Amino acid sequence: MKRFGMQTLKFDNPITILETASIVGPKEENGPLAEYFDKCLEDEFWQEKTWEKAESKIIKETVNMNITKAKIPAADINYCFAGDLLNQCISSSFGLRELGIPFYGIFGACSTFVEGMQLASVFIDSGAADKCICAASSHFCSAEKQFRFPLELGNQRPPTSQWTVTGSGSVILSNSGEGPYVTYITTGKVVDLGIKDANNMGAAMAPAALDTLIAHFKDTGRNPSYYDAILTGDLGYIGKDILSEMALTKGYNIKSNYNDCGVLIFDKDSQDTHSGGSGCACCATVFSGYLFNKLKQKKLNKILLIATGALTNSTTAQQGESIPGIAHAISIETGM
Amino acid sequence: MKRFGMQTLKFDNPITILETASIVGPKEENGPLAEYFDKCLEDEFWQEKTWEKAESKIIKETVNMNITKAKIPAADINYCFAGDLLNQCISSSFGLRELGIPFYGIFGACSTFVEGMQLASVFIDSGAADKCICAASSHFCSAEKQFRFPLELGNQRPPTSQWTVTGSGSVILSNSGEGPYVTYITTGKVVDLGIKDANNMGAAMAPAALDTLIAHFKDTGRNPSYYDAILTGDLGYIGKDILSEMALTKGYNIKSNYNDCGVLIFDKDSQDTHSGGSGCACCATVFSGYLFNKLKQKKLNKILLIATGALTNSTTAQQGESIPGIAHAISIETGM
Repeated sequence: MKRFGMQTLKFDNPITILETASIVGPKEENGPLAEYFDKCLEDEFWQEKTWEKAESKIIKETVNMNITKAKIPAADINYCFAGDLLNQCISSSFGLRELGIPFYGIFGACSTFVEGMQLASVFIDSGAADKCICAASSHFCSAEKQFRFPLELGNQRPPTSQWTVTGSGSVILSNSGEGPYVTYITTGKVVDLGIKDANNMGAAMAPAALDTLIAHFKDTGRNPSYYDAILTGDLGYIGKDILSEMALTKGYNIKSNYNDCGVLIFDKDSQDTHSGGSGCACCATVFSGYLFNKLKQKKLNKILLIATGALTNSTTAQQGESIPGIAHAISIETGM
Repeated sequence: MKRFGMQTLKFDNPITILETASIVGPKEENGPLAEYFDKCLEDEFWQEKTWEKAESKIIKETVNMNITKAKIPAADINYCFAGDLLNQCISSSFGLRELGIPFYGIFGACSTFVEGMQLASVFIDSGAADKCICAASSHFCSAEKQFRFPLELGNQRPPTSQWTVTGSGSVILSNSGEGPYVTYITTGKVVDLGIKDANNMGAAMAPAALDTLIAHFKDTGRNPSYYDAILTGDLGYIGKDILSEMALTKGYNIKSNYNDCGVLIFDKDSQDTHSGGSGCACCATVFSGYLFNKLKQKKLNKILLIATGALTNSTTAQQGESIPGIAHAISIETGM
């Protein structure tokens, strides 16, 4: 591989996105991308007794479905990179405990899915692995319970709040196959501009997205118009507008080809999700479902996916801390 | 690099352990390894208002000290791999938010430190990085508060319980330098034999340590006597005995050269730490302080460090779940 600037790697060997899988909840089934997901659940429990167990089941079944869809034996997969939003990443470690594949737990909040794809790409390009599987999950109910208020309280949500996507996305990367390909990765730094509102994650994460976006363009020499689409993970409507404006002040006009997975996954008018979707599963399911489909059909040929994470928890919020963000970017193209 | 078996990589290029740093708390200062740590704190707060903020300060200052000791500019470090035990890994993301180095958050519970060294080794061997920094932290008070009971309750602790190490260890890996060197890594799988006692983490993690230990010997063709010392991360007295016995039943006699960082860091008789030390900082500080010193002095020349993690939290315990474990191993040698 070759290094470009301080944060970007270009792969010499083709890193193929072999296959994906996605499972989502009932709210996502009512959204505009429903047709692209492999499975939509009828309720948030999926026959489990708790939301946490349901989330573990979702990531487990998504990963199993991904392996089945790829028509390869699980033993051909050298490493698994996975993580989630729950304390101590229990969704992935419990959900994947029977997988039997060497396992790296990762935590990048809602940037976890792309973090996994970045690490897996380096492993494959280096020859450490032929194939890796990367997965991430989130669940509206387990996330609300853990980060905000008991759902039973029926708290009102401010207009800046986002709706955690229930679901999981999984992807198998391979050193062989016909593409689409991972061509560049740009690794994010932790960025904290002092936003403290836990109900405005989009604003907290937008500076990190901007930092990685600019690093990607500077490192690669590309400009926004190179891509058919630039997608952030879960900035939502408010964060999307902030990023778009901030990028313009830095000389990068992304208004014509930029969107956010949290904006795409729900219908703003009918679904009462305020600023849009969020959570590890937001960009994981939108990529594994919608975007991968468009890439395979070559309706999209060059995309830049920038997953965004808010590195916060309820204790830091109570202690008056601001919300550091991080964003990891991956360039995916149908040609090398 | 070359792959050996299903879980092991051998590096073609020397991965040098350039420098380490460690900061620990007052209890660790009273233990037998005190002289090896760079700094021992007088109290658990270190002038911060909360234990969480103190833990963030500890990892921040450990990483800064590591860079200073290595006498290199921070800009020469290409990636940081870090994690901790707190919910959403806030110690590392808050502590390292001003670092300005591309950041990968990782979570392997108490195996996090070696997980970071494994990922960093692959990055360096592949040419993705010249230098990486890896760090992990834990804090007795923040861990007890989060995983068990409020410290103010003064709860009695069962004999199987372990004492979370307060501190942080940090290591800089480099593609050049005089060693010691990372020669092999063996990545662990999630292993769950059904232990449910959150006060007996050693028993819960021992099966994962065994799984990785056997994989390492099978993959490399080495046997236990190859190493001057085999060290697990934080199995403690009980887990150490379990691993030792289980390994023997599998044909691997490790009794003469095996120890555990949780056994080494505290004095069993005088420090009232029951089954020994635990936490991400346990193997991180014992390696960065004690073991690195012995390797530099060539009093140890071949060690196998197997960091062990219990992938659990308080919610899964309340929901009656067992405790999955994971163990990542790294072979460190003074000659290539």
